[in-house]
Amino acid sequence: MRLFLSAFVFPRKQIFTLRRFQSSSIRHEPISSIQIPMDGTEQSLRQSLSEKSSSVEAQGNAVRALKAARAAKPDIDAAIDLLNKLKLEKSAVEKQLQLTISSSSSSGNGSLNREAFRQAVVNTLERRLFYIPSFKIYRGVAGLFDYGPPGCAVKSNVLSFWRQHFILEENMLEVDCPCVTPEVVLKASGHVDKFTDLMVKDEKTGTCYRADHLLKDYCNEKLEKDLTISADTAAELKEVLAVMEDYSPEELGARIRKYEITAPDTKNPLSDPYPFNLMFQTSIGPSGLIPGYMRPETAQGIFVNFKDLYYYNGRKLPFAAAQIGQAFRNEISPRQGLLRVREFTLAEIEHFVDPENKSHPKFPDVAELEFLMFPREEQMSGQSAKKLCLGEAVAKGTVNNETLGYFIGRVYLFLVRLGIDKGRLRFRQHLANEMAHYAADCWDAEIESSYGWIECVGIADRSAYDLRAHSEKSGVDLVAEEKFSEPKIVEKLVITPVKKELGLAFKKDQKNVSESLEAMNEQEAMEMKATLESNGEVEFYVCTLGKKVSIKKNMVSISKEKKKEHQRVFTPSVIEPSFGIGRIIYCLYEHCFSTRPSKAGDEQLNVFRFPPLVAPIKCTVFPLVQNQQFEEATKVISKELTSVGISHKIDITGTSIGKRYARTDELGVPFAITVDSDTSVTIRERDSKDQVRVSLKEAASVVSSVAEGKMTWQDVWASFPHHSSATADE
Amino acid sequence: MRLFLSAFVFPRKQIFTLRRFQSSSIRHEPISSIQIPMDGTEQSLRQSLSEKSSSVEAQGNAVRALKAARAAKPDIDAAIDLLNKLKLEKSAVEKQLQLTISSSSSSGNGSLNREAFRQAVVNTLERRLFYIPSFKIYRGVAGLFDYGPPGCAVKSNVLSFWRQHFILEENMLEVDCPCVTPEVVLKASGHVDKFTDLMVKDEKTGTCYRADHLLKDYCNEKLEKDLTISADTAAELKEVLAVMEDYSPEELGARIRKYEITAPDTKNPLSDPYPFNLMFQTSIGPSGLIPGYMRPETAQGIFVNFKDLYYYNGRKLPFAAAQIGQAFRNEISPRQGLLRVREFTLAEIEHFVDPENKSHPKFPDVAELEFLMFPREEQMSGQSAKKLCLGEAVAKGTVNNETLGYFIGRVYLFLVRLGIDKGRLRFRQHLANEMAHYAADCWDAEIESSYGWIECVGIADRSAYDLRAHSEKSGVDLVAEEKFSEPKIVEKLVITPVKKELGLAFKKDQKNVSESLEAMNEQEAMEMKATLESNGEVEFYVCTLGKKVSIKKNMVSISKEKKKEHQRVFTPSVIEPSFGIGRIIYCLYEHCFSTRPSKAGDEQLNVFRFPPLVAPIKCTVFPLVQNQQFEEATKVISKELTSVGISHKIDITGTSIGKRYARTDELGVPFAITVDSDTSVTIRERDSKDQVRVSLKEAASVVSSVAEGKMTWQDVWASFPHHSSATADE
Repeated sequence: MRLFLSAFVFPRKQIFTLRRFQSSSIRHEPISSIQIPMDGTEQSLRQSLSEKSSSVEAQGNAVRALKAARAAKPDIDAAIDLLNKLKLEKSAVEKQLQLTISSSSSSGNGSLNREAFRQAVVNTLERRLFYIPSFKIYRGVAGLFDYGPPGCAVKSNVLSFWRQHFILEENMLEVDCPCVTPEVVLKASGHVDKFTDLMVKDEKTGTCYRADHLLKDYCNEKLEKDLTISADTAAELKEVLAVMEDYSPEELGARIRKYEITAPDTKNPLSDPYPFNLMFQTSIGPSGLIPGYMRPETAQGIFVNFKDLYYYNGRKLPFAAAQIGQAFRNEISPRQGLLRVREFTLAEIEHFVDPENKSHPKFPDVAELEFLMFPREEQMSGQSAKKLCLGEAVAKGTVNNETLGYFIGRVYLFLVRLGIDKGRLRFRQHLANEMAHYAADCWDAEIESSYGWIECVGIADRSAYDLRAHSEKSGVDLVAEEKFSEPKIVEKLVITPVKKELGLAFKKDQKNVSESLEAMNEQEAMEMKATLESNGEVEFYVCTLGKKVSIKKNMVSISKEKKKEHQRVFTPSVIEPSFGIGRIIYCLYEHCFSTRPSKAGDEQLNVFRFPPLVAPIKCTVFPLVQNQQFEEATKVISKELTSVGISHKIDITGTSIGKRYARTDELGVPFAITVDSDTSVTIRERDSKDQVRVSLKEAASVVSSVAEGKMTWQDVWASFPHHSSATADE
Repeated sequence: MRLFLSAFVFPRKQIFTLRRFQSSSIRHEPISSIQIPMDGTEQSLRQSLSEKSSSVEAQGNAVRALKAARAAKPDIDAAIDLLNKLKLEKSAVEKQLQLTISSSSSSGNGSLNREAFRQAVVNTLERRLFYIPSFKIYRGVAGLFDYGPPGCAVKSNVLSFWRQHFILEENMLEVDCPCVTPEVVLKASGHVDKFTDLMVKDEKTGTCYRADHLLKDYCNEKLEKDLTISADTAAELKEVLAVMEDYSPEELGARIRKYEITAPDTKNPLSDPYPFNLMFQTSIGPSGLIPGYMRPETAQGIFVNFKDLYYYNGRKLPFAAAQIGQAFRNEISPRQGLLRVREFTLAEIEHFVDPENKSHPKFPDVAELEFLMFPREEQMSGQSAKKLCLGEAVAKGTVNNETLGYFIGRVYLFLVRLGIDKGRLRFRQHLANEMAHYAADCWDAEIESSYGWIECVGIADRSAYDLRAHSEKSGVDLVAEEKFSEPKIVEKLVITPVKKELGLAFKKDQKNVSESLEAMNEQEAMEMKATLESNGEVEFYVCTLGKKVSIKKNMVSISKEKKKEHQRVFTPSVIEPSFGIGRIIYCLYEHCFSTRPSKAGDEQLNVFRFPPLVAPIKCTVFPLVQNQQFEEATKVISKELTSVGISHKIDITGTSIGKRYARTDELGVPFAITVDSDTSVTIRERDSKDQVRVSLKEAASVVSSVAEGKMTWQDVWASFPHHSSATADE
């Protein structure tokens, strides 16, 4: 399954010739999509609440009846006492149910905390221009965001590291293809026909909504806020949530009608759901006759170049090609901020491999890794993700093959090196119903964020599907050869219909009969041969005619012939790790964000604890006060930092060092050099707030060594005199 | 004037509110666009040829007349002798004219050589996958190209260096905005209305052509191949070539009709020229109601973010923002290979500066540079580009200001460091008619290639135009403030119409009279004040009424008031260096390409002499023969190269070392390590073919030092024992 491809899953019957598209790649608890997770407690509480409600109602009626019948006061009082008791009981159950729901649901207290956390992160990101809603002065466009200076620097660091970690270390063949893509390419890949989401329109205003979003919102809202629904109704809604990804347009429409869901903004009725293609369409050239699209992924640019790349690689398998670039997706109604956008950067690898040999020579390098994995079986049986050793997972067949396993390991290393919290990173295997029929195995690297578990990298063994699709459409063979060291003798079935005899016998049906004969598999053919040899005649069902015909011995020749073969020609399998760079970066922001009290304790200060590798600026340089001596020293350091390639910023604002530290912490700058003499300086580390004194001359090289991982801060701390933070009024 | 913007120049009258768009950014000899360069020789030869033709014709008639009159044989023979002599003379002049034309024209012998050279470069580039026509298996799309592995590596190196040289060294604010852009933004910038080329259609087939291309081709063809045209016609065609950039659609249409130019493929008649907008259009969101375009440049993303960036920079000027990204242009009929494409990478800088102070503190760093400059005056007077000292060019006012000069210098350094031949690089100033009315000064970095002089970087002082355009359209002030250290007293004109008196006097015309009074400039107002004070009454022309009215003293109060001002608010000027990355890379390919004979002398080998900075791979590693010992050593070196960040490739093919060197030279790999022992290796430098012996342990660090410019090859040559090339069978 392809990362970021589409937001609606087609019913399985439709997907047999197509790259499979995926629904929301954000999951709260995948378990909910397997079993109908009506927690025992919740179920009995809903049951109990409904009983208590009935009792209260019945007792209320009883009280009214007693009063109407002017019953004795003690009797009435006793009945009222009972009513009050029942009401108390009902209210207690109600509270308990409320608690149960909110502790398990996505918008309960946990989620309130998550939202407050997210707001703090997002506020800091926007204020410090990590990102900016695009075209803000024109009131923006939903789903489009700019990266501001620190965001750009982070992105550029992430991409450099990606290029180093994947392309350079693995000798991949990088390509860079245009975003504008002619229709024929995306027709072959299946995007023109199938890359759609189901949409409904407000029948009066024409406003468009994603049909599954509306149904999902309705179910969640009912389940979380409406305590009066019965246990049965609750179970039904939960089932809908679990299976809605597989709904056809008709099924989705039926649910929307059943629940009387209306347009959220106007309460107007909604149209039936219909598919909306998510590609941005355009036209190439002045004639208007060549339809084109902005590519929805970068992978197709690699597939269409397979032949050249295979030759470039000396006609050897395996090899990988990679591409980093923009992809586009005209979302119906983007939400979830930076996670679902209309234009984003993808980094994709297509590793081409012999389907008969998916071993990987470097697999031992990652076999010892242990991390959270969430195999299919664990998901189906309601367990949670667990720490597995990658080598064992491959050995046991949990992960389909070594190459797939190798990439899972490399992706793990990549994400953790960036600063993703390994406790909030898991590899989730696709369930059978999530995968396309042709896929051998798929795993998503999911990162937990305030939005839930986010699919950030998809790693799929897509078999030969993509190359075959383009071979067929273009007529150019996209295949590899394996030369045999010595020719092999191969036995081949040869079926030769004798057209003249068939023509005499079947006239205009001759062609259908011929084709059916040629289409027999080996077993059928050998059986026919035997029967013809013994009986001279055989009954044969021609499916294209819908009837049986009688075949005689002289009408067909069937034999097995031995042939010398010098090579095997085959379509390579492709293993595809596909990275959503923007999603990874957003999760990184959340994982690195923290707050700590200011020294005075009067406010919370924000800190992005980025590893130096991704920090937008590696170092700030502060002259303690503005004078010529310090300015000169600052210039010397700045020049040296530039020459060792350490991005830095000089802050000469007159504010206190404490304020300047706070400002720099909020950008995630790992080191600060304070210039308070012209011979030595203070270097301060962001997370520990520790400071050491280093000579002016050494300052740049110390920072560069720690920033580039050649030294740890502990090494620095052990090697240089410590500096009391008295001067730093944090 | 903006790089790559458009291919048709609007007649000046149309461009007063618009970023000025440019015609073909490829010029053969700019001189030809100034004076009508009918070379004296060519003119007299055409004249002479026409006279000789007349003489030949006249003498031919004379001979025929003599024969008809049965004149005496000696007389006829003498006449025939003269005719033959005249024919010989005509033929000599013809040859000379042919020679003159081809030596000066673009498709003469020089150009044949250029084309052969280009073909050699392009063949190598395509064969080694520096680039690939996009979607090749589907027969491609004109104007779209992929970068293959070495092309990607070169591009990535060029962009890294750009980021280092400009963004990091100058502390620029990088942004990264989407390609998909809503219409309102490009309406404000002028692109929706004016970003067009003039197109003509084949009236029968509908095939589209660029109108100016057809006219240009016609003129060049006539001038170069038709020797019979008169000197006057030749002069006319040359004038057309010189001024056609300024033609209106009507003028262009008139020329096409006059010369009876037809569709090149079918000879069908052509439509009148009409403007075709070059932006790829699309639609944002599912409703189809928000028109959008793929951005034609990255600059607008910076302008719309000016306010946030200005605040981010602490509300201080000057500062620069930069963006690297894709831009799109739906060319009518792309030609010139990689130079005119439909999607390309731009790197743009917008340096915002106080219009009253365009000095640059780092200008002294570049003031001493000397390189080819081609100021307006030299172009107008028919001289050629000459070496100037940048500091003097700014001091003399040839370059408008220091900041513009600083960027010219930085661009020069950037291009030369990449490997552009400084002898084939010039900075050409725009002529007055090339610039927009608002631009203060513009210079293009032009690089000479087989296509002529190519505009690769545009460096323009665009004044406040862009920010003003977006302020107006968005209603958001895009301004900067200069706080005064102490308040300034400013005298301001105050005109206050007395509405009551005006109403009594002019009834319904009161409003028009009031507005006209308020619209007076200082001089008009002070004159009126003086007249009113002396006469008590004045005649006043109200243009919105189209008549004069009589204004009395009590109807308006005019005064000058002193006001305290604490700051000056102004729209910054912007100086914009804009880099066409693909064009720079293509020119780099041509400048670095050379051939040399193979050792056997039986073939020409191709070499790309890339500086290590841009070389796609820095080093190849060859085990001399395949055995375990060498393989181990190769692995050790490979691991060390990876750890010092040197991209490399291992070539274990069994072919001869000479063949492997040739293959690596053709990719422009500067160094090759041959492993022929497990203790020491050979390092070979590409251009000199010199080889040294270095210990296995040192190999990676030696290569990395030279590749990163910390050492020169001369240093290496001086420090290590030389290796005889006997083993290398080059």
